Amino acid sequence: MQATDLIDIQEDILPEIAYTAHSDVPLVEKKHPTDTTLIRVGDTIIGGEKIVVMAGPCAVESMEQIMLAARSIKAEGAPILRGGAYKPRTSPYSFQGLGIQGLKILAEARNRTGLPIVTEIIDPQLVEVVASYADILQIGARNMQNFSLLKAVGKVKNPIMLKRGLMSTIQEFLNAAEYILSEGNPNVILCERGIRTFETYTRNTLDISAVPILKQLTHLPIFVDPSHATGIRELILPVSRAAIAAGADGIIVEVHPNPAEAMSDGAQSLDLQDFSAFMKGIKPIVYAMDRTL
Amino acid sequence: MQATDLIDIQEDILPEIAYTAHSDVPLVEKKHPTDTTLIRVGDTIIGGEKIVVMAGPCAVESMEQIMLAARSIKAEGAPILRGGAYKPRTSPYSFQGLGIQGLKILAEARNRTGLPIVTEIIDPQLVEVVASYADILQIGARNMQNFSLLKAVGKVKNPIMLKRGLMSTIQEFLNAAEYILSEGNPNVILCERGIRTFETYTRNTLDISAVPILKQLTHLPIFVDPSHATGIRELILPVSRAAIAAGADGIIVEVHPNPAEAMSDGAQSLDLQDFSAFMKGIKPIVYAMDRTL
Amino acid sequence: MQATDLIDIQEDILPEIAYTAHSDVPLVEKKHPTDTTLIRVGDTIIGGEKIVVMAGPCAVESMEQIMLAARSIKAEGAPILRGGAYKPRTSPYSFQGLGIQGLKILAEARNRTGLPIVTEIIDPQLVEVVASYADILQIGARNMQNFSLLKAVGKVKNPIMLKRGLMSTIQEFLNAAEYILSEGNPNVILCERGIRTFETYTRNTLDISAVPILKQLTHLPIFVDPSHATGIRELILPVSRAAIAAGADGIIVEVHPNPAEAMSDGAQSLDLQDFSAFMKGIKPIVYAMDRTL
Amino acid sequence: MQATDLIDIQEDILPEIAYTAHSDVPLVEKKHPTDTTLIRVGDTIIGGEKIVVMAGPCAVESMEQIMLAARSIKAEGAPILRGGAYKPRTSPYSFQGLGIQGLKILAEARNRTGLPIVTEIIDPQLVEVVASYADILQIGARNMQNFSLLKAVGKVKNPIMLKRGLMSTIQEFLNAAEYILSEGNPNVILCERGIRTFETYTRNTLDISAVPILKQLTHLPIFVDPSHATGIRELILPVSRAAIAAGADGIIVEVHPNPAEAMSDGAQSLDLQDFSAFMKGIKPIVYAMDRTL
Repeated sequence: MQATDLIDIQEDILPEIAYTAHSDVPLVEKKHPTDTTLIRVGDTIIGGEKIVVMAGPCAVESMEQIMLAARSIKAEGAPILRGGAYKPRTSPYSFQGLGIQGLKILAEARNRTGLPIVTEIIDPQLVEVVASYADILQIGARNMQNFSLLKAVGKVKNPIMLKRGLMSTIQEFLNAAEYILSEGNPNVILCERGIRTFETYTRNTLDISAVPILKQLTHLPIFVDPSHATGIRELILPVSRAAIAAGADGIIVEVHPNPAEAMSDGAQSLDLQDFSAFMKGIKPIVYAMDRTL
Repeated sequence: MQATDLIDIQEDILPEIAYTAHSDVPLVEKKHPTDTTLIRVGDTIIGGEKIVVMAGPCAVESMEQIMLAARSIKAEGAPILRGGAYKPRTSPYSFQGLGIQGLKILAEARNRTGLPIVTEIIDPQLVEVVASYADILQIGARNMQNFSLLKAVGKVKNPIMLKRGLMSTIQEFLNAAEYILSEGNPNVILCERGIRTFETYTRNTLDISAVPILKQLTHLPIFVDPSHATGIRELILPVSRAAIAAGADGIIVEVHPNPAEAMSDGAQSLDLQDFSAFMKGIKPIVYAMDRTL
Repeated sequence: MQATDLIDIQEDILPEIAYTAHSDVPLVEKKHPTDTTLIRVGDTIIGGEKIVVMAGPCAVESMEQIMLAARSIKAEGAPILRGGAYKPRTSPYSFQGLGIQGLKILAEARNRTGLPIVTEIIDPQLVEVVASYADILQIGARNMQNFSLLKAVGKVKNPIMLKRGLMSTIQEFLNAAEYILSEGNPNVILCERGIRTFETYTRNTLDISAVPILKQLTHLPIFVDPSHATGIRELILPVSRAAIAAGADGIIVEVHPNPAEAMSDGAQSLDLQDFSAFMKGIKPIVYAMDRTL
Repeated sequence: MQATDLIDIQEDILPEIAYTAHSDVPLVEKKHPTDTTLIRVGDTIIGGEKIVVMAGPCAVESMEQIMLAARSIKAEGAPILRGGAYKPRTSPYSFQGLGIQGLKILAEARNRTGLPIVTEIIDPQLVEVVASYADILQIGARNMQNFSLLKAVGKVKNPIMLKRGLMSTIQEFLNAAEYILSEGNPNVILCERGIRTFETYTRNTLDISAVPILKQLTHLPIFVDPSHATGIRELILPVSRAAIAAGADGIIVEVHPNPAEAMSDGAQSLDLQDFSAFMKGIKPIVYAMDRTL
């Protein structure tokens, strides 16, 4: 498989960022413009020509909810199912996820649909069990510098989706990835999901420039999470188009069969019809970027 | 002229942001999804189907410099020339612009090329003279809440390019535009140019979500300035693609015949060859959004 | 008059910040630890041993309101009266101040009480008239980089109270002061009034470290505005104590005879009884810092 | 033991923040103005009249280093020794602390000097072992929302020093404390240590207003960490004075026998002579606040 033509085009006018050794992140840094990590999950290759959409509800709530979401997601052509079994919540009294029961529901959904699953891991002691159910393990924004957790996921073989911290610089983000690679796991996907700023209209502020910066600094695939970045359903399509146009390799988006009754993040979740429109809506940009869907 | 198809598509999945009266910005708010302000400058219509690129150097330095830039910009199909005659500079000892001499150079460049010009205005006492030379008057980010200046430009007929303050909320941005409209000038172009955050890799952080939010809240055209938002030449193309994909109506970008010798903002300026690549690079996204260039 | 003992004590443990020439702010930088600007306004010396409290309403509303405030302020020992005649407001439809009528009320209050007055200036064209009524001219946070205004106040003799912009670095703040000094007016008071951050509990975030940093970098007096920094009446005393303990030379605070009916900033204004408690409340800290009140 | 007079004085002018039930943090919220948690560690009571200074090096490096620091700290009257055995570091290749060996050195220093020790915990699996060596367990800023860790320290009896996240709101900070209390550990000390903002002169921006806000919202003791908040040795005294004047119950400060050779945080560490000046320097403010040292 070849690096995309797009990257070649970009390099033509990006002559000044040198691919020299940054001694602090030797494993994640890009050493040559065509240096690209491709991550295979089931039949899907992440980081290549295909824009990969990961979709599903914030939290696993029931078998029925997950199957409704999973069938629709598959029908629309998104290749990976997301869902949270362990939820990091600001308040100890909020719904904390179904735990092991949630993992079992996700695994059953995979059995029935063939969709690989991505789910969050929040405790180093649970890495082994979560890794036995899920395909991709996600490190959430609040745990980006939970170094014990980074080291723990560096010791398994599953690909890791590492989300940028709300308060983390790009340099710190790369260092967090370096923790995982330095423990032996090369399959890390970086995900920009918005940073905290003074602007309160959106839940966070998507740092769109981080996408091309990361594409230049590292060979790892770059995703964008428009749901957490904006917190507003109506912004998900335009922001996802922007992310793909900026060079992102994929989108991870919250989809719920019934957002109004979601146990968390309802206001930022697409319903199944929205998701269908979303997949159609990003298509022209995907093709304009010489990518596939 | 019709609102673009794009807007119709977006509206389909954006049902929840209501176009109700916001009593605080009655003149700038959008009252209906197809409510759009079109601004004619010479032969160019801003806010319509066409993605309008305004390009030119940060500061007017000489007739030769401006003509080199202007001819190249015109040849590449950008319809409007930018250049600063009065420069707001952090230090009193930095180059403050050529002043009236700079305005004359810009006017002469317009005579020779036919390109309308946009230039910054920093003092209410200079509005009349600058308005007599320039087509579009620009209010810079640091002056977004210079209310005397806003009122002064509200009294002329020239279109106004209003840049968002580095630490201004979207609500404050709309209020600043309302100042201009409430004085009688309906022709305001809003420009997102990056906000200040903790991230120091880029000069500012482009708030890409502001583009679709503003498209929903107001009928005014929305531009993006990738040069000031990022401060890094290599990011201008990917960030501009993102802006157009997010729904922006135009881009204002710094182009200098010899960035290495620019009197200001050299590191973020495209040279003439870069600019040619830039115009080619945004084209596929422009077309994917059903816009023209 | 001597530099205070406090400064000597601080210098003992502050050996590493050198007072070398910073070429960018040659006039405002401190060249020697005891290099201090003292500004005389009526009988009051700003920047010396005395902690100077400037107090009064956000906006001048009526002769009666100002006289109620002024008499109480004088009785409590605060030597300078503040009040706004020209108000920079986010919305064009908000109360914009009484203008020239407000200046006349302030001048009459000075005649009756002997208190010098400080008031905001928002337009270079009004500098002459405001300077003829007021003792100290204030540049508000939103105008900190209104360079035309800075140059204009640099040409009068009145002391200038320059507020730090919501989005401005300490370096930019010093550069803004340099604009005024470079035009010939050496009497600038710097005022930290909170910066914009992600924290929304308070109106802004008071950057308390700016006080000792500025004391080390410049010879100009440093004030703190707890009213705008916090936006919460209950925080004014503890935050003012902190400011004085950090080395501030004075406090500028909003006091209104009837905050519940104030035309602006009521929620952050002290009433006359609060102000009496405030003056008593800061006293122990003032003395602990070897200052006087 | 009684609530201090200071609190009574503050309450007089703080009538408007009601002590009503906030359903989201029922255990940490203050229900009455005199509602105060006192935490006993050895002979020291935290949260009472005494301003408690915790001091020591960023990282435990050797027995000799710790004993040099500990003896000096004790001689100056600071009652608690700090030192890191497990260091959360941005880069996987930075010094990660001495681990169990560091804990043993700290415990031996306690044996020899009688000073209780506070040390950081970064992994839920290590809570038991660290709790067996240390008196107070610290949760660092990057782990403030490491919910597994919060739950784990909620199950031991040691007091917990919980640091505010670099980009955490006050509300999130209280929720993090609620996690610990809801697991059964009532002895939590909150520590403001600076938040991330656009200002880069200091390492972080100390949110001084957070001190009086937290004193009003919760009964837990509030500390300030001037070393991490500023990152500049020369600012530690003025900022600590400010913290005490704002109502803080204590200071945690980095002290190293030889900052120039420290393995981490040298530039922000006081040497032993600086620390002696620091203790003398805060004394007048401590007494002005009717507190003791």
